Amino acid sequence: MIEDISKVITKLRKKVPLVQAITNYVTINDCANILLAFGASPAMCEAYDESFDFAKIVSALYLNLGTLTKEQEASIIMAAISAKVHNIPVVLDPVACPVSKRKVDIIDKIIQLGRVDVIKGNSGEIKFLAGLQAEVRGVDSIGNQEGLIEACITLANKYNCVVAATGEKDIVSDGKRIAVIENGVEMLTKVTGAGCMLGALCAGTVGAEEDKFTATCAAIVSMGIAGEKAYEAAKAPGSFRVKLLDSIYEINEEEIIQSSKITFLGK
Amino acid sequence: MIEDISKVITKLRKKVPLVQAITNYVTINDCANILLAFGASPAMCEAYDESFDFAKIVSALYLNLGTLTKEQEASIIMAAISAKVHNIPVVLDPVACPVSKRKVDIIDKIIQLGRVDVIKGNSGEIKFLAGLQAEVRGVDSIGNQEGLIEACITLANKYNCVVAATGEKDIVSDGKRIAVIENGVEMLTKVTGAGCMLGALCAGTVGAEEDKFTATCAAIVSMGIAGEKAYEAAKAPGSFRVKLLDSIYEINEEEIIQSSKITFLGK
Amino acid sequence: MIEDISKVITKLRKKVPLVQAITNYVTINDCANILLAFGASPAMCEAYDESFDFAKIVSALYLNLGTLTKEQEASIIMAAISAKVHNIPVVLDPVACPVSKRKVDIIDKIIQLGRVDVIKGNSGEIKFLAGLQAEVRGVDSIGNQEGLIEACITLANKYNCVVAATGEKDIVSDGKRIAVIENGVEMLTKVTGAGCMLGALCAGTVGAEEDKFTATCAAIVSMGIAGEKAYEAAKAPGSFRVKLLDSIYEINEEEIIQSSKITFLGK
Repeated sequence: MIEDISKVITKLRKKVPLVQAITNYVTINDCANILLAFGASPAMCEAYDESFDFAKIVSALYLNLGTLTKEQEASIIMAAISAKVHNIPVVLDPVACPVSKRKVDIIDKIIQLGRVDVIKGNSGEIKFLAGLQAEVRGVDSIGNQEGLIEACITLANKYNCVVAATGEKDIVSDGKRIAVIENGVEMLTKVTGAGCMLGALCAGTVGAEEDKFTATCAAIVSMGIAGEKAYEAAKAPGSFRVKLLDSIYEINEEEIIQSSKITFLGK
Repeated sequence: MIEDISKVITKLRKKVPLVQAITNYVTINDCANILLAFGASPAMCEAYDESFDFAKIVSALYLNLGTLTKEQEASIIMAAISAKVHNIPVVLDPVACPVSKRKVDIIDKIIQLGRVDVIKGNSGEIKFLAGLQAEVRGVDSIGNQEGLIEACITLANKYNCVVAATGEKDIVSDGKRIAVIENGVEMLTKVTGAGCMLGALCAGTVGAEEDKFTATCAAIVSMGIAGEKAYEAAKAPGSFRVKLLDSIYEINEEEIIQSSKITFLGK
Repeated sequence: MIEDISKVITKLRKKVPLVQAITNYVTINDCANILLAFGASPAMCEAYDESFDFAKIVSALYLNLGTLTKEQEASIIMAAISAKVHNIPVVLDPVACPVSKRKVDIIDKIIQLGRVDVIKGNSGEIKFLAGLQAEVRGVDSIGNQEGLIEACITLANKYNCVVAATGEKDIVSDGKRIAVIENGVEMLTKVTGAGCMLGALCAGTVGAEEDKFTATCAAIVSMGIAGEKAYEAAKAPGSFRVKLLDSIYEINEEEIIQSSKITFLGK
């Protein structure tokens, strides 16, 4: 399994998937840069009279609900519909959905009118979408991870997609397969956009690898290992951010095989 | 006094205040990152149908008028009203108000319909708001600092708030107390957003310390010392920005007591 | 010729031109920072009820069509009209125009209602605007550079402006003079916004140097040399971005004369 995961990075660099991202303005630059560093080709095409047409030609679509303007909201729906019509995989990052009724409504529209292949959120967001009690504070999850594996499975089966929940341990499930990933460092929570960047990387891998469970695991393992390597080189967040980009650029199959901390559960 | 100021950083890191920021897109990422590095929890919640409700649950609200879109304008008013209703302190950064009639109108609305606890601007902005002649160039103040202390006192009394004017020397006043702070380096003017980041830090400290004069002094002293330390390590702006974040992350009570250059005037 | 080009940097640092930029949110921070590092004064003034008035007082206007919101679209037209009325030079960056009918329409309006002094695009964008077949992929040009010099000349004569096409070699023409610039490194394509930052620098130099052909060459040579120097210091994109800003800050006349790889063709 880890061999399949490690090979995703090579497939991605060979294909250079074009990833359309409609994402919050806080970390839009970070998302573009990490996709480039990883080997993908980002295009932050989000004007609502361009997003439908542009989504036809991309390898994957990344939708992040962070600081969603009214115009972005329309663009996201249009792009999601286009993705359904044109068979383009969609990665959804339901940022802060537990504290915003509006975001729940938008997620419903994306799923009903468009499509979702991967939902990547923090523990609170995933539990909330799975119908469980979620403890959140602003955009951050503060609850424990109890019941998180079940929440991932439930949500994956509900929408027939891959679900990834990040936290102290990261969980990935397609409803049958389950991966528990323990890479990463605390310092990733001290830079803004680590979650957004991970979501963007998921869109990159999903744009290059057909098996979306494997693709999602590859993105999460890569981010976690890159975080660990960056932290070895830099113990403060300004320098850490710089090294994180460098580490994603340098990551390769060998590094993934040697440094991954992944356990597969389930059937 | 400096002991009280130095303790703010420890209070902040204990409380981890949730800071809602509605701010310009030029430096929104920098503001989020410096708040995280300082020990606060940033949430750039600015959608106009979310900003009122979100402002209920935060420790402080940061309003920056830099590149204000129409949607942000509505959000800022809604959030300021929510802050008044829910007793949340507000830090206002009146970017470029001397060259924009529209921004003056928005400031009036924020003050009349909402509330303002701290106004943090450059010398030109503060003089202008105090009704004095202000020399500005685009978004920058180019006038001298003559009469600036009086302008701060006047403005603080006018709106019953704390006023901070930045420049070669930084002035803070609550109408009675006056602090003159001489920390900082020229290089801070060579990176975009040093002023915005400082405004965000003020919201962080005001979210953790009841005495807003002390809180504002703590943010300004911290930024100045971090700038000095960053400049020791890096003499060019790309590297300086990285070290600035690192230095804000590393700052502590001892550093503030040892390195602060603050003089208290007035009663 | 290279002496004239090298002197632009000194003129710019003496004048500190105020550059108004209306640009995409992906790289707006990078554009502001590189203008500051170069020695210009950026003002990202883009609110549509401010952009007309603000354009009166600036030295140059930079218009970048990357992720153009509806509000930015109106602002760009207003600012371009103001530039025409008030005799302010305009640098246009027609990002992704080959894949967006909407952007072509906006470019037409800018040229018809406003003015354009420099068009800076990648090879695909310039060929497309010159009426030739362009090979593009998302926001990137993937075609070869065959026929590019002719495209630059054609477009420069069509709109009576300077045209700069970037790629493996960068071409600049005012319809008569032609410069071929071979500075730069591959790593510039691995960070987002290298093209946007270059466009912003062009606005900086055009705001300081009357001869727009010389000004544009100065910006391109500076960016290329800074890229080479950054790459000497850093082989991965996170660190490279940091060093790029540092190198633009440190660049000077001697460095430009010694390191420029520029050939002048034509009359």
